[in-house]
Amino acid sequence: MKKIVTFGELMMRLATQNNERFGQARSLGLTYGGGEFNVAVSLANYGLNAQFVTRLPNNDLGKSALEEVNRFQVNADHILFGGDRLGVYFLEQGAGLRASSVVYDRANSALATVETNTFDWQTIFKNADWFHWSGVTPALSQTAADVTLEAIKVAKSMGVKISCDLNYRSKLWQYGKSPSEVMSELLAYSTVILGDIDTAYFMLGKEKVNPDYTATNELANLYKPLFEHCSNLDYVATSLRNSINTSHQRIGGILFDGAQLFTSKSYEVSYVVDRVGSGDAFMGGLIYGLNELPAQEAINFATAACVLKHTIPGDLNRVSVNEVEKLTTGGGDVQR
Amino acid sequence: MKKIVTFGELMMRLATQNNERFGQARSLGLTYGGGEFNVAVSLANYGLNAQFVTRLPNNDLGKSALEEVNRFQVNADHILFGGDRLGVYFLEQGAGLRASSVVYDRANSALATVETNTFDWQTIFKNADWFHWSGVTPALSQTAADVTLEAIKVAKSMGVKISCDLNYRSKLWQYGKSPSEVMSELLAYSTVILGDIDTAYFMLGKEKVNPDYTATNELANLYKPLFEHCSNLDYVATSLRNSINTSHQRIGGILFDGAQLFTSKSYEVSYVVDRVGSGDAFMGGLIYGLNELPAQEAINFATAACVLKHTIPGDLNRVSVNEVEKLTTGGGDVQR
Amino acid sequence: MKKIVTFGELMMRLATQNNERFGQARSLGLTYGGGEFNVAVSLANYGLNAQFVTRLPNNDLGKSALEEVNRFQVNADHILFGGDRLGVYFLEQGAGLRASSVVYDRANSALATVETNTFDWQTIFKNADWFHWSGVTPALSQTAADVTLEAIKVAKSMGVKISCDLNYRSKLWQYGKSPSEVMSELLAYSTVILGDIDTAYFMLGKEKVNPDYTATNELANLYKPLFEHCSNLDYVATSLRNSINTSHQRIGGILFDGAQLFTSKSYEVSYVVDRVGSGDAFMGGLIYGLNELPAQEAINFATAACVLKHTIPGDLNRVSVNEVEKLTTGGGDVQR
Amino acid sequence: MKKIVTFGELMMRLATQNNERFGQARSLGLTYGGGEFNVAVSLANYGLNAQFVTRLPNNDLGKSALEEVNRFQVNADHILFGGDRLGVYFLEQGAGLRASSVVYDRANSALATVETNTFDWQTIFKNADWFHWSGVTPALSQTAADVTLEAIKVAKSMGVKISCDLNYRSKLWQYGKSPSEVMSELLAYSTVILGDIDTAYFMLGKEKVNPDYTATNELANLYKPLFEHCSNLDYVATSLRNSINTSHQRIGGILFDGAQLFTSKSYEVSYVVDRVGSGDAFMGGLIYGLNELPAQEAINFATAACVLKHTIPGDLNRVSVNEVEKLTTGGGDVQR
Amino acid sequence: MKKIVTFGELMMRLATQNNERFGQARSLGLTYGGGEFNVAVSLANYGLNAQFVTRLPNNDLGKSALEEVNRFQVNADHILFGGDRLGVYFLEQGAGLRASSVVYDRANSALATVETNTFDWQTIFKNADWFHWSGVTPALSQTAADVTLEAIKVAKSMGVKISCDLNYRSKLWQYGKSPSEVMSELLAYSTVILGDIDTAYFMLGKEKVNPDYTATNELANLYKPLFEHCSNLDYVATSLRNSINTSHQRIGGILFDGAQLFTSKSYEVSYVVDRVGSGDAFMGGLIYGLNELPAQEAINFATAACVLKHTIPGDLNRVSVNEVEKLTTGGGDVQR
Amino acid sequence: MKKIVTFGELMMRLATQNNERFGQARSLGLTYGGGEFNVAVSLANYGLNAQFVTRLPNNDLGKSALEEVNRFQVNADHILFGGDRLGVYFLEQGAGLRASSVVYDRANSALATVETNTFDWQTIFKNADWFHWSGVTPALSQTAADVTLEAIKVAKSMGVKISCDLNYRSKLWQYGKSPSEVMSELLAYSTVILGDIDTAYFMLGKEKVNPDYTATNELANLYKPLFEHCSNLDYVATSLRNSINTSHQRIGGILFDGAQLFTSKSYEVSYVVDRVGSGDAFMGGLIYGLNELPAQEAINFATAACVLKHTIPGDLNRVSVNEVEKLTTGGGDVQR
Ligand SMILES: [Ca+2]
Ligand SMILES: [Ca+2]
Ligand SMILES: [Ca+2]
Ligand SMILES: [Ca+2]
Ligand SMILES: [Ca+2]
Ligand SMILES: [Ca+2]
Ligand SMILES: [Ca+2]
Ligand SMILES: [Ca+2]
Ligand SMILES: [Ca+2]
Ligand SMILES: [Ca+2]
Ligand SMILES: [Ca+2]
Ligand SMILES: [Ca+2]
Ligand code: NI
Ligand code: NI
Ligand code: NI
Ligand code: NI
Ligand code: NI
Ligand code: NI
Ligand code: NI
Ligand code: NI
Ligand code: NI
Ligand code: NI
Ligand code: NI
Ligand code: NI
Ligand code: NI
Ligand code: NI
Ligand code: NI
Ligand code: NI
Ligand code: NI
Ligand code: NI
Repeated sequence: MKKIVTFGELMMRLATQNNERFGQARSLGLTYGGGEFNVAVSLANYGLNAQFVTRLPNNDLGKSALEEVNRFQVNADHILFGGDRLGVYFLEQGAGLRASSVVYDRANSALATVETNTFDWQTIFKNADWFHWSGVTPALSQTAADVTLEAIKVAKSMGVKISCDLNYRSKLWQYGKSPSEVMSELLAYSTVILGDIDTAYFMLGKEKVNPDYTATNELANLYKPLFEHCSNLDYVATSLRNSINTSHQRIGGILFDGAQLFTSKSYEVSYVVDRVGSGDAFMGGLIYGLNELPAQEAINFATAACVLKHTIPGDLNRVSVNEVEKLTTGGGDVQR
Repeated sequence: MKKIVTFGELMMRLATQNNERFGQARSLGLTYGGGEFNVAVSLANYGLNAQFVTRLPNNDLGKSALEEVNRFQVNADHILFGGDRLGVYFLEQGAGLRASSVVYDRANSALATVETNTFDWQTIFKNADWFHWSGVTPALSQTAADVTLEAIKVAKSMGVKISCDLNYRSKLWQYGKSPSEVMSELLAYSTVILGDIDTAYFMLGKEKVNPDYTATNELANLYKPLFEHCSNLDYVATSLRNSINTSHQRIGGILFDGAQLFTSKSYEVSYVVDRVGSGDAFMGGLIYGLNELPAQEAINFATAACVLKHTIPGDLNRVSVNEVEKLTTGGGDVQR
Repeated sequence: MKKIVTFGELMMRLATQNNERFGQARSLGLTYGGGEFNVAVSLANYGLNAQFVTRLPNNDLGKSALEEVNRFQVNADHILFGGDRLGVYFLEQGAGLRASSVVYDRANSALATVETNTFDWQTIFKNADWFHWSGVTPALSQTAADVTLEAIKVAKSMGVKISCDLNYRSKLWQYGKSPSEVMSELLAYSTVILGDIDTAYFMLGKEKVNPDYTATNELANLYKPLFEHCSNLDYVATSLRNSINTSHQRIGGILFDGAQLFTSKSYEVSYVVDRVGSGDAFMGGLIYGLNELPAQEAINFATAACVLKHTIPGDLNRVSVNEVEKLTTGGGDVQR
Repeated sequence: MKKIVTFGELMMRLATQNNERFGQARSLGLTYGGGEFNVAVSLANYGLNAQFVTRLPNNDLGKSALEEVNRFQVNADHILFGGDRLGVYFLEQGAGLRASSVVYDRANSALATVETNTFDWQTIFKNADWFHWSGVTPALSQTAADVTLEAIKVAKSMGVKISCDLNYRSKLWQYGKSPSEVMSELLAYSTVILGDIDTAYFMLGKEKVNPDYTATNELANLYKPLFEHCSNLDYVATSLRNSINTSHQRIGGILFDGAQLFTSKSYEVSYVVDRVGSGDAFMGGLIYGLNELPAQEAINFATAACVLKHTIPGDLNRVSVNEVEKLTTGGGDVQR
Repeated sequence: MKKIVTFGELMMRLATQNNERFGQARSLGLTYGGGEFNVAVSLANYGLNAQFVTRLPNNDLGKSALEEVNRFQVNADHILFGGDRLGVYFLEQGAGLRASSVVYDRANSALATVETNTFDWQTIFKNADWFHWSGVTPALSQTAADVTLEAIKVAKSMGVKISCDLNYRSKLWQYGKSPSEVMSELLAYSTVILGDIDTAYFMLGKEKVNPDYTATNELANLYKPLFEHCSNLDYVATSLRNSINTSHQRIGGILFDGAQLFTSKSYEVSYVVDRVGSGDAFMGGLIYGLNELPAQEAINFATAACVLKHTIPGDLNRVSVNEVEKLTTGGGDVQR
Repeated sequence: MKKIVTFGELMMRLATQNNERFGQARSLGLTYGGGEFNVAVSLANYGLNAQFVTRLPNNDLGKSALEEVNRFQVNADHILFGGDRLGVYFLEQGAGLRASSVVYDRANSALATVETNTFDWQTIFKNADWFHWSGVTPALSQTAADVTLEAIKVAKSMGVKISCDLNYRSKLWQYGKSPSEVMSELLAYSTVILGDIDTAYFMLGKEKVNPDYTATNELANLYKPLFEHCSNLDYVATSLRNSINTSHQRIGGILFDGAQLFTSKSYEVSYVVDRVGSGDAFMGGLIYGLNELPAQEAINFATAACVLKHTIPGDLNRVSVNEVEKLTTGGGDVQR
């Protein structure tokens, strides 16, 4: 069984219910989530040995978050307690032609204030096959970026494969550095990168190019700089999302190995129960697929996992391998 | 006013809410339902004299179920109390590309353990015009199949018309007999059968044929064996469902009298509030239609009733004749 | 900052939840609304100086309604307390092919029983730029119609522009007068009228004509009688709604100045969270637009405001100028 | 099995939840209730043949109310449809030292506007043993008082025993008559009167006397005028309530036959889930008791029934004879 | 009408529901509160001209908080927008022998980071009669303490009376100063101080004395240092709370003018719906009382207001003068 | 860290909410619980190494139950999947003078149908210090009793201490054996027995004696037969519960070592949030106490743990060692 380590922030998510706007809410749905945790839960659901690394505050909220890690059989042995507060994000769920809206309240969180030499990465990566991080963590603070680099370097030195979900969030990156100043170095160690070309270019300090994702030759040229920048890069992948409106989307996915383009089926996704975490569901499906399946099946699996996430409330993709595979081969009526 | 008797199991239904999966649920919506009860409620709503026959356990749950029978003015005079437990079914409501899922927990229920010579069928069918049963009851246990046959024979002997909804449930039929061993004899007494051709063939022990339901001549040939097997058969009918996804369906219906094919309008059904019980809504509409309307209007009514059920939570189709007829003739904006 | 006065009834709205029918409801969602109040809230949200005039009963329900006026910074200085009861309306939210249904319970409400010489219209309209009323108020009772006329006359005498949303409700008008007997005189003072041509014709006592709203020349002819009847009329406008079903609509809008037709983009609205109040949202957007924007942008704004209302539960359109303008120029994914 | 007829108004009850005040409520709990209906449900629960007579509006709300009558196996054969609206009462549930508060909204209801010669009392009282009415109905309107008298006279003429719960509600009696003008005549036919002495005196136009309910001799004197005024009077009874606060009460009951005083045990009732309907629960228990039990057991039963009502949300006392009798003989831990 | 200004932080309150612990919560009740805001709402409810001063972040959460200020007719003209985040507090409601628990998450809030010369105190205090602040604000940060002093000095210079609720919160005061270093100077300007003697002593840097609050002479001696330290001091007051458990308390109050001790009735408070904000309810009642009533009635009013708060969910004391006075003179049954 | 193994059934618990009776419920609260699991969760919360052994059905409900085991860091390595259904119990929460009521639906559950030679007890008890079982498991079925004996014998052979909570449930024991036929042998291996004397006597086939638990000498005599029957018995203990009503109880505890009686403080428990699982909370506290504390502190700890459970919804006692110890030494106000 493959061992996959993910590292990032685990937040309290407080979401409006029943299509309410923030000003109407008299209660908020409480779950816990965060991109890298979401990936770890997906992998544990698929039967892999997933380990999640983070720091949580030593109060009732941090302990409640830890319970959610445990419930999914994600290994929590290297989660530390410390810092002042749990990161929070407020989600106003959109509907139809009204977009969802997020208010981040994660400054000075337990993870944002963590410093290097806190986590024991040598032990964490023992027997690990894969390390996953995302562009959200170095966006939190200089120290979070430093710790991310620290982790990546140890992983690399121990022969662990490294994946990154670029995940650019314009409301973060408030600590004075631009994404390209920070991400360029971090990305160089990647085995797999998830993200569209323009985001990758932006993080490498290059200009936007508005690529045509259906043109294989064009993509080969456009992805070339990434393969050059990241000497270990095996794959780049991205979901292709066409938002008709908040409740109605069309979703596919592509995987590119530098030479060959693997394209999944595209799905009509309507209506959308909860779109947050669907990128993480794609990432989780992709890591599973690249570890257990041929490339074409891997991108099929990642895309179907992403699609299913849209039907499940909360950040987490509560689906099994069977359920994802069933979707790649057809839908279904009530099971009875 | 026509008197219609239906016989079957009344269960507690425990359904997830707000698109949750089973593992997320902290509460379950509680209603009561079961195919033959659902049909009886439809008929009572349409103003017919509906009687429902079942056995309920003599505990607080059985009594609560009985209250729900009473509230709809369905005659409950021949509901008996006895046995050990109320049948339960757990429903995980699907959404979009995630299918709904049912966990049955009805083994050893009050009805599954009932034995012959328990119900007083002579009295029950006094002045009755119609008896409705479904393929779910003989799927529960040998004794339930025996009691079904007992009821059918008395109904037949008293000149009561008999309808059956084939309703094949693969998760039932656990007591050692195959459907064709049991259903073949039971179906022989039918005046009306609801179900698609392949299910009927399966229950008669014949091979699948994948019929084209739009080809009248082909249908005449394919339905011939049913009309031969069931010497009193007047009509076969089926809903035609095209599931785009769990939340989006296209629904029509056909009625065949052995010679002529009556086809209803087809409806775009989106989005789906609750699909469970929609087949029973079709059946209830059909029984009403065949008793009160010409054949073409009957199939129109059955289909529109089925369509409306998709907008109503729970197993029951809470609509009036007026509301169904309004849909057969056009939709409508807010009524104010 | 423009001062806009609206006058009408503020009701308690009691709506079914989770797609329930009235007979299933064990609780009802409680909000407050009413066409003219809904317009005032829109205007306050857009930053105008909105004042709402009504009468509320001097009990806990009336006071709770007043709190809702205050929360939106709508000026409530001229809301009076008196009368016996708060108007109520019960709303059964529809879904898919099941229409919503309203049970009005507003007879003998505090506003329906108000008499002339109760409100101090001279003070109310001091410095006002605009007065908005709708066809619902004169439909309530003879005295309500009298007070409406009283207000209109004072507004006119003080040079205040006057808009009317025709808003024909067949379940009202129970006091013995036909709409044309009452509305004809009231409408004569209008600067702006919102409503389709056939409703306007009906209120002026003319025959239905089933107009083609895409034909400018035809519209010019059809609208001519209104411009003749209302010597101050600057604009007529109407939303164009195509209900595919309760959950799926197509919505556009037109504005006509007697010579030129301004047509907004048409929007696919799916799925619908709450359609009630969407006409008021259109009206609010239109008043804002006609006061702050060129005509083409005004109708664009009104239509986009109306579309956004369909995504928000309750009568009120909780959106800002920014949000409406964003929709007129494109949609959007999660904001984070 | 005794047949008991009750007559009165069935209202929609809209109650605040979770200790909210009216101004905080965003939803209201919806049930149906009314004193005489509440009594009928108690009697049906105790296995008697209970019939409830009222008038409901012919709309979705009236039909929903009727479903609630049916669910309890209360005979609804003589409930009529007509009139304009369903009576409503709003309940703000109190707690601790904050009292509950009721806003009545029942003017012009279907029952308040009913006229004489509407109900077929001869048929209604056929084979009836008992007729129950309360002081609430004649408080609604002159016509409601007239119909009450009409019913009483027919009942009397057919030898039906008559009970009245005095139930003085100061917020009613708005139609110009004082209680004593109306109630004095109505009460004269009573077999059983429920109410404290001062309320009875008030309704007979006599002065308050602040009786000591523990002094048998004194009571005999005080009750004498009632026995004189009502020539058929067999019993007077009253609950004795000592409100420590809204959540904490002490409750007993007395029954007086003109000579002998029967006193029940007194119960500590804490905490109170829902006090509304507890007087009706007492009345229901008393009617059951006087029909089925000796006098001492009757008052024990009535008091215990009243006590149990305080633990059940809604107007209705959902308890069986067994449960009431269990309390008269001791309490109990979890039943498992 | 007296004008009262209060200044402090307005927070989002996120509270567990239905007696859940933090780890069980899947949703949190959302309201808004904060000591000084709570006082302002009380005063507005009592009909005074209340103004609340704070700083809120310019995001959807800050705007939602502002709506809550407006709904209570508290003047919000001098609320500023700025800073990074809204202060939050998480409340785990206790029950019985389990205490409630608060997790503060208010560091770096909009108010904690406000700086001097931000608010226009000269304008704010124009025509003001009273300024209220509490010991919570200077506990937030050095700048918040500075702004508090700034406000106090302007108030003093303009002849405005000043009250302080000492409100010591041990989980605050994290910025390096002890309470006595900061509070001693701030308190010197007070007209009225609310707090027990030991808290006052602690804030003045004096040792604990465990006073006997029933001994007038002793109190005179113990309060002497306060009257010396605060040259304008007219009154000290404190609630006297005896917690039997979280759900059951006994509450009284005392008011001391330096010479005479005014003692209120003591109330049995059971069960407790929500204890948070009850000190603010006392303070609000006291300010009302000292402005409108004789001293004895003022302390009676403050204590009864405090008692009623325990029956209302949320921070806010939604009661009128009538309701408070009713409790000072007796309780009551259902009002109908 | 001590390793404690518990063995028993884990059920789905479906409980009424908001004081509803079964017939009123439209939703049921869903949690998971069972005596021996509840004990394991307590022990894990106290920091011990707790392992829970059971069998769950291999369906979505069984998997959801497993998630709840994992979330509390209870070791689930030896939980097996198999059998047909998850045991269910329905709980009607009582209030005041209405008792709670349980409907068991656990016949033929995955655990009730498990057979010997299924669990690998040798591995399970490796390094274990303690084994806990209860009288509920052998009450389920003959095979469940057989497996219990199998486990006990292996535990004994490996030197593991054994505790039993007698937990007599009259609604179980349906398979034809009396408790004394089965329990007598099972109990003989016990180190610690929890239960009152009369239950123990009943299980050993002896007559009731109605002991006085405050008389040490008497207790010594009465407990003598247990110490004789169980050659390894170190302690007997029992909680002492005095139910004033469902919402109000008085609770203490005693521990007897054959010679000395240790008596805890007695607590007033009012009001009761959820009494189910409080016996298990006592047991969990006792096992912790006997492993980590002197005898007097052990019984103090067990009793305080039991008391706290009454404040927490669900079967599980979500409290820490700190929280329990805080109660043994005093209560507390809001923590902030
Ligand atoms: Ca979750
Ligand atoms: Ca999500
Ligand atoms: Ca259904
Ligand atoms: Ca129902
Ligand atoms: Ca509101
Ligand atoms: Ca709504
Ligand atoms: Ca609306
Ligand atoms: Ca009630
Ligand atoms: Ca609250
Ligand atoms: Ca509070
Ligand atoms: Ca739980
Ligand atoms: Ca429990
Ligand atoms: Ni609101
Ligand atoms: Ni969870
Ligand atoms: Ni949709
Ligand atoms: Ni994500
Ligand atoms: Ni119901
Ligand atoms: Ni849809
Ligand atoms: Ni069905
Ligand atoms: Ni839709
Ligand atoms: Ni409207
Ligand atoms: Ni209480
Ligand atoms: Ni009553
Ligand atoms: Ni509010
Ligand atoms: Ni209490
Ligand atoms: Ni406070
Ligand atoms: Ni009900
Ligand atoms: Ni959980
Ligand atoms: Ni209590
Ligand atoms: Ni237990």
